[in-house]
Amino acid sequence: MNHEDFMAEAIAEARLASGAGEVPVGAVIVRNGEIIGRGRNRKEEKKSPVSHAEIEAIEAACAYIGDWRLTESVMYVTAEPCVMCSGAIIHARIPRVVFGVKEPKFGGVVTHACIFDTPSFNHRTEWLSGVCREEIAAMMKDFFSGLRKTAY
Amino acid sequence: MNHEDFMAEAIAEARLASGAGEVPVGAVIVRNGEIIGRGRNRKEEKKSPVSHAEIEAIEAACAYIGDWRLTESVMYVTAEPCVMCSGAIIHARIPRVVFGVKEPKFGGVVTHACIFDTPSFNHRTEWLSGVCREEIAAMMKDFFSGLRKTAY
Repeated sequence: MNHEDFMAEAIAEARLASGAGEVPVGAVIVRNGEIIGRGRNRKEEKKSPVSHAEIEAIEAACAYIGDWRLTESVMYVTAEPCVMCSGAIIHARIPRVVFGVKEPKFGGVVTHACIFDTPSFNHRTEWLSGVCREEIAAMMKDFFSGLRKTAY
Repeated sequence: MNHEDFMAEAIAEARLASGAGEVPVGAVIVRNGEIIGRGRNRKEEKKSPVSHAEIEAIEAACAYIGDWRLTESVMYVTAEPCVMCSGAIIHARIPRVVFGVKEPKFGGVVTHACIFDTPSFNHRTEWLSGVCREEIAAMMKDFFSGLRKTAY
């Protein structure tokens, strides 16, 4: 499987989120070609500001492998991780993150901060952006235009 | 109650953590003089890299009040929040954080990043450091010197 195939799984998680009225963000964590954790934004459902897709996927993967260290894995996430999630990714020692679109409000990789490029941390995470960008951007646009229609 | 009284509650949580073999960090969230959430580092116990004291306290407080917005509250935490926890505090819209000591490895308030002072975020969190600094520093030193004795 290539980047696009795994990102399709993250997009499927994001569509589950939007189906539940949540901002559509999804993530999967892959190790040795196997998805070891899946997550989607569940902030409203769980009434928790930390229930972002990346946090949910990290918790699922750690529970699955029985360790908090997610070395030798890759996270695929539809949108740029926020500062909180970028920090969680470093704590989990995930070596590579692939995301689709930039996140204008809280993005912590390139938009509001450059957490993965902070040289003083003891773990480095590589990152790649733009995978399935058009499909994800269209999904986000559909979600927010639906919200505006509901509001008026 | 003043800052030192609430920080004493956070220190009590930190001591519970060290008693369980975890790095001693504790936090409480206070609103209208009432502690609405408590948390301690449970990373090893839960095998989760996100189970920091601040995240645990935020989840407890949100569950208690039934909302992810922790406006009009103050977080007391023994050590400087990391980048992840600083991001979580912003997501939870906590307006003020009081901490004891700086965190050399991951501190996200002043040490490795200045998350609360990022002007482009849509929420601002005030912060104050140094409350009960000596007691907390001694507790951390005792914990890590105990670890070194165990290792040799």
